[in-house]
Amino acid sequence: MKKSQSSENFSNKIALNQGKRSFVEIEEIVRYSETDQMGVAHNKSYFEWFEIGRTEYCRQKNIPYKNIEAQGYYLVVVEAFCKYKKPLRYDEKFIIRVFLEKITPKKVIFAYELVNKEEKKLIASGYTIHIVTNSKAEVCTLPPDILDKIKE
Amino acid sequence: MKKSQSSENFSNKIALNQGKRSFVEIEEIVRYSETDQMGVAHNKSYFEWFEIGRTEYCRQKNIPYKNIEAQGYYLVVVEAFCKYKKPLRYDEKFIIRVFLEKITPKKVIFAYELVNKEEKKLIASGYTIHIVTNSKAEVCTLPPDILDKIKE
Amino acid sequence: MKKSQSSENFSNKIALNQGKRSFVEIEEIVRYSETDQMGVAHNKSYFEWFEIGRTEYCRQKNIPYKNIEAQGYYLVVVEAFCKYKKPLRYDEKFIIRVFLEKITPKKVIFAYELVNKEEKKLIASGYTIHIVTNSKAEVCTLPPDILDKIKE
Amino acid sequence: MKKSQSSENFSNKIALNQGKRSFVEIEEIVRYSETDQMGVAHNKSYFEWFEIGRTEYCRQKNIPYKNIEAQGYYLVVVEAFCKYKKPLRYDEKFIIRVFLEKITPKKVIFAYELVNKEEKKLIASGYTIHIVTNSKAEVCTLPPDILDKIKE
Repeated sequence: MKKSQSSENFSNKIALNQGKRSFVEIEEIVRYSETDQMGVAHNKSYFEWFEIGRTEYCRQKNIPYKNIEAQGYYLVVVEAFCKYKKPLRYDEKFIIRVFLEKITPKKVIFAYELVNKEEKKLIASGYTIHIVTNSKAEVCTLPPDILDKIKE
Repeated sequence: MKKSQSSENFSNKIALNQGKRSFVEIEEIVRYSETDQMGVAHNKSYFEWFEIGRTEYCRQKNIPYKNIEAQGYYLVVVEAFCKYKKPLRYDEKFIIRVFLEKITPKKVIFAYELVNKEEKKLIASGYTIHIVTNSKAEVCTLPPDILDKIKE
Repeated sequence: MKKSQSSENFSNKIALNQGKRSFVEIEEIVRYSETDQMGVAHNKSYFEWFEIGRTEYCRQKNIPYKNIEAQGYYLVVVEAFCKYKKPLRYDEKFIIRVFLEKITPKKVIFAYELVNKEEKKLIASGYTIHIVTNSKAEVCTLPPDILDKIKE
Repeated sequence: MKKSQSSENFSNKIALNQGKRSFVEIEEIVRYSETDQMGVAHNKSYFEWFEIGRTEYCRQKNIPYKNIEAQGYYLVVVEAFCKYKKPLRYDEKFIIRVFLEKITPKKVIFAYELVNKEEKKLIASGYTIHIVTNSKAEVCTLPPDILDKIKE
């Protein structure tokens, strides 16, 4: 199965990132409502955490995502991936790391790592691919000022 | 970027599936609480729908997932992927199709397609990879009777 | 404080309703993602189920809620209450019953009962109070045609 | 029906509380995934926030809720109420205030207020009533050491 190949490529890139590229971090804590009957955080929660990471990324780059939408641009998720390494339990603190993987006027890719707060062990990693649309859901391009701030 | 390659491989497999492999279907409808301020279903919801699909898959194979857990086996998600093609809106009906992609005593892969109810157009596709654990979260193998039923 | 009064009215009316008033029903099933580490459906899920009930209520009255919003009217929740009697478990089927408790051009009150599918035992009951707003979030009144359909 | 009475007591007590009783606070921020197509936080989210408040309340009283469960006691929600005063939007900061309304070995009532971060205006208020169960979901009583810490 070829899928493993992509995962590998993806993982390599992540590993590379850690050496050379900057990332934004935000701390979170597992909510009771995010657990399921297995006693760990549900797989869907990670995609909400990735989104919290994106929000924080944009904020730290001085272009809050709500301002991007207020200007009529939407970063619509067209692909989402998560690899789960270790479970997260209720009330456990962890850190969301966000990397800007790629940005063009038409496409943005964010990569993510979740690490636990204490030993910084990898809990999960993933990515989301976004296209840019306007408020009518038509594909468009990010204006240079927004694009530049995101990649600063 | 190599990730696209894997996506392509994945998509090809899906396309192949449609020609030759059986799948299980279940109809769903977008809840108001599943929309976000973009006016469409939120990206995390698709992973909940995939899970509904898995539940239905196991039920139709006469091995309800709750029975699998009752016997002490857990299909833990270790990888999840979704490709979003078209948005889904509040109150829109759609169909979740579930394919058994691969099964071994240690690993199960499900693939999914979401299609709209009317024209059967592809809305999203994805997959989840699962390992098998016991109730102590230790990796183990599925007993033959469960495995056989799932792949029937 | 008047809220207590409404709670009381609500309770009496519920009791009354069961004897004489019509209600709308829809069947649901507990999703894995709706459970928490207690092994039962999380308390927030009931409010999503109440909403599914409202959607179904409006549909059965031939005024789908999406059409109400399409005409520029929003039934905004200003109060929500749930009393939990029995737990619900993963994959358990249940029925959501919706009663139109009260309707004026400015306010709508829905009451709900969740009963299990087999013995129709009461699992939970509750209500939601809604005001009417336009698309600018300004308080307004429901036009007679919508109001009449809802209370048919 | 006695519920109405409790609502009334609740309301009076809330008002009283503000003047004289201590509360625990925690700051939160509205996630994108918590909004719905009305462009505001969905009504169910408030119940998740109340729960975050309870977690924080117990932590600040030096009896983390996870420790309570680890000792075999569960504070099961049997009633939940929320009154929504003002909408909350994506990325908006707010404060959850938690009051211990009542505690006996068999029952705990928490009251909540959500206020916005800047002007401390009331966004929502509510309460949850909990009974105590053991790990077999049987009703039981809180041991004195846990009870005393909670009400400290």
